[in-house]
Amino acid sequence: MRPGASAPHLETPLDQIGVLARDAGEAFVNEQLRPSFATPELLEEVAVELDRRRAELVPVAQAETSLAEERLDGELTRTVRQLRAFSDLSATGLERDAIIDTADSSAAPPRPDQRRASVPIGPVAVFSASNFPFAFSVAGGDSASAWAAGCPVLLKPHPAHPHTSALTAAAVRDASRRAGAPEAWFTMVYGAAFATGQALVAADAVEAVAFTGSFAGGTALARAAAQRDRPIPAYCEMGSTNPVVVTPAAAGQRGSDIAEGLAAAITGSAGQLCTKPGLLLLVDDPAGRGLARNLRDRLTRVPRARMLYPEIRERFVVDLANTAGDPRVQTLTAYADDSADTRVGGALLEVAAAELGNQDLLFEEIFGPAAVIVWCADDRQLAATIGLLPGSLTATVHAALEDALGADLIRRLSLRAGRVIYNGYPTGVTVGHATVHGGPHPATTSPSHTSVGMTAVRRFQRPVGYQNVPDELLPAMLQDANPLQVPRRVNGVITSAAINRSE
Amino acid sequence: MRPGASAPHLETPLDQIGVLARDAGEAFVNEQLRPSFATPELLEEVAVELDRRRAELVPVAQAETSLAEERLDGELTRTVRQLRAFSDLSATGLERDAIIDTADSSAAPPRPDQRRASVPIGPVAVFSASNFPFAFSVAGGDSASAWAAGCPVLLKPHPAHPHTSALTAAAVRDASRRAGAPEAWFTMVYGAAFATGQALVAADAVEAVAFTGSFAGGTALARAAAQRDRPIPAYCEMGSTNPVVVTPAAAGQRGSDIAEGLAAAITGSAGQLCTKPGLLLLVDDPAGRGLARNLRDRLTRVPRARMLYPEIRERFVVDLANTAGDPRVQTLTAYADDSADTRVGGALLEVAAAELGNQDLLFEEIFGPAAVIVWCADDRQLAATIGLLPGSLTATVHAALEDALGADLIRRLSLRAGRVIYNGYPTGVTVGHATVHGGPHPATTSPSHTSVGMTAVRRFQRPVGYQNVPDELLPAMLQDANPLQVPRRVNGVITSAAINRSE
Repeated sequence: MRPGASAPHLETPLDQIGVLARDAGEAFVNEQLRPSFATPELLEEVAVELDRRRAELVPVAQAETSLAEERLDGELTRTVRQLRAFSDLSATGLERDAIIDTADSSAAPPRPDQRRASVPIGPVAVFSASNFPFAFSVAGGDSASAWAAGCPVLLKPHPAHPHTSALTAAAVRDASRRAGAPEAWFTMVYGAAFATGQALVAADAVEAVAFTGSFAGGTALARAAAQRDRPIPAYCEMGSTNPVVVTPAAAGQRGSDIAEGLAAAITGSAGQLCTKPGLLLLVDDPAGRGLARNLRDRLTRVPRARMLYPEIRERFVVDLANTAGDPRVQTLTAYADDSADTRVGGALLEVAAAELGNQDLLFEEIFGPAAVIVWCADDRQLAATIGLLPGSLTATVHAALEDALGADLIRRLSLRAGRVIYNGYPTGVTVGHATVHGGPHPATTSPSHTSVGMTAVRRFQRPVGYQNVPDELLPAMLQDANPLQVPRRVNGVITSAAINRSE
Repeated sequence: MRPGASAPHLETPLDQIGVLARDAGEAFVNEQLRPSFATPELLEEVAVELDRRRAELVPVAQAETSLAEERLDGELTRTVRQLRAFSDLSATGLERDAIIDTADSSAAPPRPDQRRASVPIGPVAVFSASNFPFAFSVAGGDSASAWAAGCPVLLKPHPAHPHTSALTAAAVRDASRRAGAPEAWFTMVYGAAFATGQALVAADAVEAVAFTGSFAGGTALARAAAQRDRPIPAYCEMGSTNPVVVTPAAAGQRGSDIAEGLAAAITGSAGQLCTKPGLLLLVDDPAGRGLARNLRDRLTRVPRARMLYPEIRERFVVDLANTAGDPRVQTLTAYADDSADTRVGGALLEVAAAELGNQDLLFEEIFGPAAVIVWCADDRQLAATIGLLPGSLTATVHAALEDALGADLIRRLSLRAGRVIYNGYPTGVTVGHATVHGGPHPATTSPSHTSVGMTAVRRFQRPVGYQNVPDELLPAMLQDANPLQVPRRVNGVITSAAINRSE
């Protein structure tokens, strides 16, 4: 029997992890040779099962994470929708990247018939995050996109919410059985120790790694993946400062509204979101100063909130103290750390842009309800400071409609981030085809990919080409008649039409 | 002045490499903010310039590589066409991956307008290969695809053909100037030492690495790229054994033809092709034995040929002797190594499949005109042996039309290779949209990508998302009217139509 849902404190013995991965690898190979279940059905069944267990899942997650019921209920809804969106995607074949170059015997040299489509890469090791017990956990986006790509999942739950993980895992197992998937298509690998994660990444049969969490954790896993005898890709989403730039014109026109939106984005879910705005780039003029005062007042008044687990609060307190202790930094507001009240409040610090250099420690993420204002003397210093920023998941610009700065800021910010938001707030990621939840290092280890949205499946696929293979031996997606009605690139033109080889 | 074409023996000082990369990085950022030239034009000008210098380039390459004039002339033609194909691709925007999800204010929660397109990743370090002095060298596929993606190139030429590289570099510089590209868009980095390559990969401003060469070289560069403070992707194409499976029925019907084709593929260009068939999986029956004898006779008779440079011959001689010296291996034919004649002839070895294990040393590439027959007792052992094969760029199956084995073999081989060829030969890679020249490790360090063909540009791009950005501030490719007439995925459907936001 595999490690079961009833014992969330279980530790998978280190020497068993390679065996579990091998089982997943064998199931994978068998499935490629003799398909036994339909991926869209697996995803749909998991969605159904999670929805069915909502009344059980939400309270358990609430008790384990201190997150609000409404937030968790919404997160579960999003998780269910995400599974359904990947089910639909998998059924359409849109991300299988079917490309066909037909033969040209008159070319010199003659061109053979070449066709390609993406196939699943093999077993994927998924590491859950602490801050989204549903959406980035056992049946979250990484698992859903790995399944949608056609891969088995080996899942290491986050130790901060063991019962939520165990309940979700039980739901996945039931759903998986109903869909007819092999047992090894979903395997829990338990253990909070560093060695457990390392053993999972080192397991020979694992073909890719997906991780959401800290910079240190992601860096260690990515290095381990690269150091294997057979290196594998590691898609790690790590820390992000999510800079927000407010132009003088925008601060003048909408300073109070922007302060309200920022306060909510900084303190929502106790600031424990990977897209929480952590750096605010303002021009030092009356409008900017007014916005800062307004934001400080709001953050001072925000009710204290409990963080996910004690260690994360301790790290927040230390990181905040370190930043506030930097001689260049002033504190505008910060709740008093109080051992009698383990909840935390909003914090706002400030520093002059002129004091910052490249790779400055002040550009590092503080995970929790805190932000740092970077005061720029003028537009030029604003632009120069953007050039110093580390890679981020998001970058936001607030500009006025007639603002000549807007276009330039968008171009500059797009060099530093995966997603640029205009006159909005970076928290809240919409799961769609166009979603980009990724970005340059240190936000991720793989800037060419997103970990959220439909194209997240690309992390777990590889292309296979077929040269001069007879129609009946080709995957259905590449056959002349296009029986699956997939959009394909045929001789450089996208079409769903059938191919007439005599053309 | 940058290291110039007139001094191919130049060594770029190690401490200058980071400076050159920084210049490329600054040129890159400037280009994103204020575009100064058109990528399609740059590629077209390089094509024109190479074609114009054909009479100068081919003889120099011939003298440096010992490859035949006809082969080199054809390779230059292919290189010129490749540049033009990437020029066309860049003009169409087909690989910019434009995706749009329009806003839906009635959704719960409301969906923002999200759009994304791929942008260039930044300066790319390209390492030339020895065996294709044009197609995988200074202005070869890696450079062309990096340029097509919109990236500057820092190029380390292969020391085996310094004059060809210098001449090509001069052509690129002239073309680049004509196209109006900044000088730092193309930079040669000279030096045969290990430290030169390491310094190039370590240079802070470099964002990606492309390499074609040996397993040891690719592995060292990929590790260096992963070990940086800011890791970057390394796309290394390394060794490949390119297994060929011949079914008993095919051997019976076309044994002599297949032997002829294999002999040409094994010995063409003195076996110095990354897709040279190195492993032949045959069933031990009279037809298989007949094919083997026929192939042995052809390889025995093939004229000796000079290899690219002395070190590559020495390595071939050592690798061949090591394999032939394995107690499980018999030699069917091998030219005598003769210090008076530095040319090499064809070699054919054989081993019983029953003697092979997983990760067997006999599965390693011998770079040169040699192949190993693996004798399988029956179809079952054939299938089992395929399961033991390392990752390869290509895998080939020769089957008869009525052969029940064909479909199963294609499925099994597609698990081990990037391209599956049916009743053909793996040498000769056609540059097109559907090209896959990649594959599972150890063939490459990145099985999700190809280093040849139009989709090779994906290695050097990353997606950027734009949320609620006003139409006039979006990149043209993502604007409502679709002024560039690019095919886009709009709400999950591919179309070139304009978007009506009021819909």
